[in-house]
Amino acid sequence: MTILDGKATAETLKKEIAQTVQQWKKEGKKTPHLAAILVGCDGASETYVNSKERDCHEVGMQSTVIRLPDTTTEAELLQKVNDINRDADIDGLIVQLPLPKHINEQKIIEAIDPKKDVDGFHPLNVGRMVAGLPSYISATPDGIMELLARYHIETAGKHVVVIGRSNIVGRPVANLLSLKANPGNCTVTLCHSQTSNIKALCLQADIIIAALGKPEFLTADMVREGAVVIDVGITRVKAATKNGFRLAGDVNFNEVAPRCSYITPVPGGIGPMTRVSLLKNTLKAAAKEVFA
Amino acid sequence: MTILDGKATAETLKKEIAQTVQQWKKEGKKTPHLAAILVGCDGASETYVNSKERDCHEVGMQSTVIRLPDTTTEAELLQKVNDINRDADIDGLIVQLPLPKHINEQKIIEAIDPKKDVDGFHPLNVGRMVAGLPSYISATPDGIMELLARYHIETAGKHVVVIGRSNIVGRPVANLLSLKANPGNCTVTLCHSQTSNIKALCLQADIIIAALGKPEFLTADMVREGAVVIDVGITRVKAATKNGFRLAGDVNFNEVAPRCSYITPVPGGIGPMTRVSLLKNTLKAAAKEVFA
Repeated sequence: MTILDGKATAETLKKEIAQTVQQWKKEGKKTPHLAAILVGCDGASETYVNSKERDCHEVGMQSTVIRLPDTTTEAELLQKVNDINRDADIDGLIVQLPLPKHINEQKIIEAIDPKKDVDGFHPLNVGRMVAGLPSYISATPDGIMELLARYHIETAGKHVVVIGRSNIVGRPVANLLSLKANPGNCTVTLCHSQTSNIKALCLQADIIIAALGKPEFLTADMVREGAVVIDVGITRVKAATKNGFRLAGDVNFNEVAPRCSYITPVPGGIGPMTRVSLLKNTLKAAAKEVFA
Repeated sequence: MTILDGKATAETLKKEIAQTVQQWKKEGKKTPHLAAILVGCDGASETYVNSKERDCHEVGMQSTVIRLPDTTTEAELLQKVNDINRDADIDGLIVQLPLPKHINEQKIIEAIDPKKDVDGFHPLNVGRMVAGLPSYISATPDGIMELLARYHIETAGKHVVVIGRSNIVGRPVANLLSLKANPGNCTVTLCHSQTSNIKALCLQADIIIAALGKPEFLTADMVREGAVVIDVGITRVKAATKNGFRLAGDVNFNEVAPRCSYITPVPGGIGPMTRVSLLKNTLKAAAKEVFA
């Protein structure tokens, strides 16, 4: 059984990105520049945006965080998005979600120039991804694909069971893995809350991607010997620790791991891979790799 | 066993659409108007465009066909698309595919205003469909969904096996059926040329959608008693008929039908439903139902 070390892989990736950025600077090219808009003062959002800023600086990218009050109107936010769309110095733009309830999130997502949409949430990028065209792929599915690639895990012809049909994880990764690509070329079954026979399906899977957000949902009796298990869940559960909680994945790691050929830990698996994907996309944006 | 009569259902739909168009005219509203661009003189494309024109007239819609020579440049075609995008009288625009090889099809598809993209091929519409947002759904997947709906076939919690991952049938219908919607809420397995155990998967399916384009691929030993079988294939195979051929689906109808609860025939199943979907989308475009 091999642990898919997302933390170490993400570190390697970050070094590669930092080297590219450094090389570009040497060549007199522009420094990649990510802008993040944060509306209101949600604690978790604040933490995420700070991490993203720190990650940018770590690899030598420029980062701009625009903090707007939670009284910002939709029109004002749209104006700000348009300003950044037109700002030639900014390569990538993310609007941290969730937004205050008086703002239509979908409208904001679709207002971002697809060329700068490094979160990959704009339907144009989703549609291009689904069609196998160059696109910004959102962070978690991209992190999963990269980890599979870096460990040279054979995917062609394999049966993947994806548990969870969210628009940010389950559905895109199901689409990506069924494309004629590498990683890819999988037979993919997409399961969700309405699926009646998840256990029977999981037992047929060569690769299981658990992305439903239910702590330790996947147990040993659902996994066949030699399966690859990717755990996307990360939930705080009460525990006798200093903080009063521990982080649990969607997989009961202790009992599932011995059955696996490969498995991701939580934390230190998909989480760090997700984080680094935003940097990958920002680099792509600066290189104008996705949209010529 | 019930035959899913696509021909009769499409006729009903056409009547409903014709009534709506007539009602609109009475109310002094604009007549829905579909424009089709045909480049070159491919025989099959010519036939398709003529059918679409005839369908429009049959339901009282206006139709304009723009015929361009196969020497048309990409720039000239883009210009024509832009002209129609700006023409307020035209509600829907299709560019008949395939295009001559010197023209980049994807570029043309993405040049069509998504609001007029009644073929549903623009990645913005694909992305919106995948996210469960209002969108133009391309004709064949829409026809399948409509037929399931009209026959009140229970889909929630059912296991659907889709054979074929094309961007115009298999992949979109797999996405649609797994959405939280009705029809929908299915567990969906998407199979293709790289799938090793298609028979074992089909035998687990409550609903099979055969869209791989291999005549009579699906045989009785692959279908469990009581399954719903949707046949999207339509291939000319040599036969001792007047024309020297007959139309074959992807399903061996004679042997599979007795096992099914519902099955579509070929011809007269998904074909007519596909044709009528373009009219549905043109009506939606005229009503500004998808994009406000």
